[in-house]
Amino acid sequence: MKIAIAQINPIIGDLPGNAAKILCAAQQAAAKDVRLLLTPELSLCGYPPRDLLLNPSFIEAMHISLQQLVKDLPPNLAVLVGTVEENLQAENNGGKPLFNSMALLDNGIKQIFHKRLLPTYDVFDERRYFEPGLQANYFTLDNIDVGVTICEDLWNDEEFWGKRSYTNNPIADLAILGVDFIVNLSASPYSVNKQQFRETMLRHSAARFQQPIIYANQVGGNDDLIFDGRSFALNRKGELVCRARGFETDLVVVEFDEVQRDLLQTTVVAEYDNEDEEIWQALVLGVRDYAQKCRFSQVVLGLSGGIDSSLVAAIATAALGKDNVFGVLMPSPYSSKHSITDALALGESLGIKTTTLPIGQLMQGYDNTLADLFAGTQFGLAEENIQSRIRGNLLMAIANKFGYLLLSTGNKSEMAVGYCTLYGDMNGGLAVIADVPKTRVYSICHWLNHHFCTDAINRVSLIPENVLTKAPSAELKPGQVDQDSLPPYEILDDILQRLIHNHQSATQIVDAGHDAQIVDRVIQMVARAEFKRRQAPPGLKITDRAFGTGWRMPIASNWFSVKNAYESKTIPILHK
Amino acid sequence: MKIAIAQINPIIGDLPGNAAKILCAAQQAAAKDVRLLLTPELSLCGYPPRDLLLNPSFIEAMHISLQQLVKDLPPNLAVLVGTVEENLQAENNGGKPLFNSMALLDNGIKQIFHKRLLPTYDVFDERRYFEPGLQANYFTLDNIDVGVTICEDLWNDEEFWGKRSYTNNPIADLAILGVDFIVNLSASPYSVNKQQFRETMLRHSAARFQQPIIYANQVGGNDDLIFDGRSFALNRKGELVCRARGFETDLVVVEFDEVQRDLLQTTVVAEYDNEDEEIWQALVLGVRDYAQKCRFSQVVLGLSGGIDSSLVAAIATAALGKDNVFGVLMPSPYSSKHSITDALALGESLGIKTTTLPIGQLMQGYDNTLADLFAGTQFGLAEENIQSRIRGNLLMAIANKFGYLLLSTGNKSEMAVGYCTLYGDMNGGLAVIADVPKTRVYSICHWLNHHFCTDAINRVSLIPENVLTKAPSAELKPGQVDQDSLPPYEILDDILQRLIHNHQSATQIVDAGHDAQIVDRVIQMVARAEFKRRQAPPGLKITDRAFGTGWRMPIASNWFSVKNAYESKTIPILHK
Repeated sequence: MKIAIAQINPIIGDLPGNAAKILCAAQQAAAKDVRLLLTPELSLCGYPPRDLLLNPSFIEAMHISLQQLVKDLPPNLAVLVGTVEENLQAENNGGKPLFNSMALLDNGIKQIFHKRLLPTYDVFDERRYFEPGLQANYFTLDNIDVGVTICEDLWNDEEFWGKRSYTNNPIADLAILGVDFIVNLSASPYSVNKQQFRETMLRHSAARFQQPIIYANQVGGNDDLIFDGRSFALNRKGELVCRARGFETDLVVVEFDEVQRDLLQTTVVAEYDNEDEEIWQALVLGVRDYAQKCRFSQVVLGLSGGIDSSLVAAIATAALGKDNVFGVLMPSPYSSKHSITDALALGESLGIKTTTLPIGQLMQGYDNTLADLFAGTQFGLAEENIQSRIRGNLLMAIANKFGYLLLSTGNKSEMAVGYCTLYGDMNGGLAVIADVPKTRVYSICHWLNHHFCTDAINRVSLIPENVLTKAPSAELKPGQVDQDSLPPYEILDDILQRLIHNHQSATQIVDAGHDAQIVDRVIQMVARAEFKRRQAPPGLKITDRAFGTGWRMPIASNWFSVKNAYESKTIPILHK
Repeated sequence: MKIAIAQINPIIGDLPGNAAKILCAAQQAAAKDVRLLLTPELSLCGYPPRDLLLNPSFIEAMHISLQQLVKDLPPNLAVLVGTVEENLQAENNGGKPLFNSMALLDNGIKQIFHKRLLPTYDVFDERRYFEPGLQANYFTLDNIDVGVTICEDLWNDEEFWGKRSYTNNPIADLAILGVDFIVNLSASPYSVNKQQFRETMLRHSAARFQQPIIYANQVGGNDDLIFDGRSFALNRKGELVCRARGFETDLVVVEFDEVQRDLLQTTVVAEYDNEDEEIWQALVLGVRDYAQKCRFSQVVLGLSGGIDSSLVAAIATAALGKDNVFGVLMPSPYSSKHSITDALALGESLGIKTTTLPIGQLMQGYDNTLADLFAGTQFGLAEENIQSRIRGNLLMAIANKFGYLLLSTGNKSEMAVGYCTLYGDMNGGLAVIADVPKTRVYSICHWLNHHFCTDAINRVSLIPENVLTKAPSAELKPGQVDQDSLPPYEILDDILQRLIHNHQSATQIVDAGHDAQIVDRVIQMVARAEFKRRQAPPGLKITDRAFGTGWRMPIASNWFSVKNAYESKTIPILHK
């Protein structure tokens, strides 16, 4: 029996468009004698539909779409389509009104299966909408028993994790039932090395339960989340027999041999050479899809001559084409000469249009307007931010005038410590590298220059060499460099990784070799910047803990002022 | 037995400060011969602590704080303190690592009770952190059996709701156990008429199960959420025997008569005269607490002479005092004369400081800077937004320079349809009336003028009469009024209420008497404004569906382009 994976890129809520994508894949699969077609989790509406699920007319439209799709599918092809089903017992027994479901279409809607394990961590809110399914799911097709799992259902192998996150392990239940193979319909967001983790985890489960597993993943960017595809299949021994493309749609076919009762070896797309390349591909897809799904064909961004805006310009160019990227240089009297020459060199290297709008006159205008009010005060943060906000205003004016999408260019290290100006350089519809730490920005640029260096003799770089070697600076006052205000990025990024990803205490971070004062200062900066992050544009998520839908912190909080006393066991006295 | 309710106002994460507040209430209660003191849900850390709960050192500090509090409490007073407890079975059995708990302190930590019903709707994410408790909670104190419930535990009376939201009703379980009375420790956020709803619901449950209920609620503003207090108690018949103050801390004492086995009548604070007054109190508390908990003593806002900024200025003045509110007039060449006179009259009426910073010169500066790029284009949205963003930049410069909190002044109707400028008038640390529809802004201002009109003979108004009577206008081009772009606010607000709160379809809204074209245009405007709302400051929530932590919509979505076809049954053809 041939089984195909339709690794589609749905648009959230575009029911007719997504159904058409499923139909198109079905027609291609039918032409290849496929008997069973898999589509990703919630493939009809795209994942995540979020609060659209609270809208009764959305649910009704899903049903209508599914009925329509059933009629149009080719004969002799069974298709698993991701949809929702009402929980008819909800009002009587208590529970959420919907199930996250998979419909088996095979000359009509044959069976509906419910997702059993509902994630409620990081960016996931599935308990907000769904009731968990209670039983193991499987169906029989041409005498073959196919176990059905949806995404999280496979992420609770207590032997692999060393602990349980949910009471049940649906794979174990299906193994007891003795199905022939297990399919998994996923919408699993990308993060660095996630694919390696997925394959390692499922190789373990396949081998442990001696169950072939076919894993179908969604591809495409949806707001902050990037789905990387890379659907794959494992045989009964846990060996990889198939891998689909990363960061692209794909249709791959695997074959279940009814004699061997196992999946046969087929095409395995190679993995990426390194993490930098993988992240690059993710970000390019994230920008392309956000722009296209929001119906923008062109983007604009500020070019400072610095490394962040250079990388974002390169990503945008790869995503949308050089004719669709507009770079704006906005030098001030504090801008160094190289900030202009580097930005122009980058524009030339990428082949994008640029323009230069000096902001000195506007700075003078604000100084004049505020002269009386600010009389007797010193040049400081207020004046620095004015410059950034003039640039933000100019960029938004251009975006509004010509219908461009403004991309913001801040990196994760800046966003963490608040080294960025709200309503200034934070402006944009999408924050392209908001989850990329500064040290990673450097390594991606180095990889990029190595990878795209076509003129080997002259060693032409995509990102001008000077951008990579000069000291990072916001250039908001004379002679300013980032390291006046921040620890060196290698140190900062390691502290941030421990703090944000590893939930380490100040004591633990200091014990790892960092200076106590620096650690404390970083923690306070991260806490104080919460109000900025709350108003940041969606940022493309590439790590397991991004500032965005999966980061839910209070703003008005006193924890970070009192925590050190607890960690150092100098507990504050109650103020009686 | 005397039972006291400590209606405290915690700061999120301020463990020593919150413990001190509990201790202070305990000392007052002890002086009144109270035997049992109730505090709100998670009173030790404040509600909602959100992702601070993912931080192991935060959990450890909670334990340390609780241990310290135990030692300092007066003798002969039992105290229920809201805290968390580790779920020791989590890794073996699967489940979240914490319980949302109540600790009974009575010469040591005597018992720990777990919340059973965990909300995962609107702003609530409790399944993200907590495992539900599995059993009915009670303890015996001086031979009296006290049933313990935490917030949501009381919100599942299937007889009252006509349906179940959860499998169990903890009140029913406690009634079967035959406790003497039930306490509920809550952190229930305010919305209009919520108190009336709470009392009606619990009167029903108290009478149905013949159980006295003592309901202790948190008070205070925490970011977008306002907790209104108004703790209360009901006797066995469901009659109100006590109500604490609204929007203020309070300590009230009720008495359980051991002969009658019921609560005795005591003080009942009167309800508010009308919804406008109630909302006013809520917003004043929300502004005061956000400012104080973020350590701002002064606020700044733009005064346009319009009704929104006038109301926000009045709220800020009531919250922080007239000396702590700074109003900035920023007239442009398009500003009407009355916009200046009305804003100045408001400033005088409130007694706040104002300054005037004309923006004409800066507008000219942007025109000059963009002249080449914009050559041959018409004046339009880009130029309108530039003005708003100049004002936003000036206000942030003042906020940065003097350490003020910038308040943004947009109302809910504007936020819904996107009639506001991102990085312009949306700027601010707190969006004071972002959940107040425009028609409600008017009614609150009318109530305010009536309520605060001290000089009856001269009929001096707090909000100048002209602000209330003139046509609303953004004044971003000559002769502009809101109704050039929007339906009349009475119509708009009714459509929005049906759309946002009632989840009605376009068809249902049209059937209710609205024009189909207007309904469709409003729906499209609401959908397109999602990217703006994502970047809005936290807005004080006063309705059951605010744009904020409880509004989780995709940005890049196509649902609102295709929905009409489904609702009108003209289903789109699959694009094969």
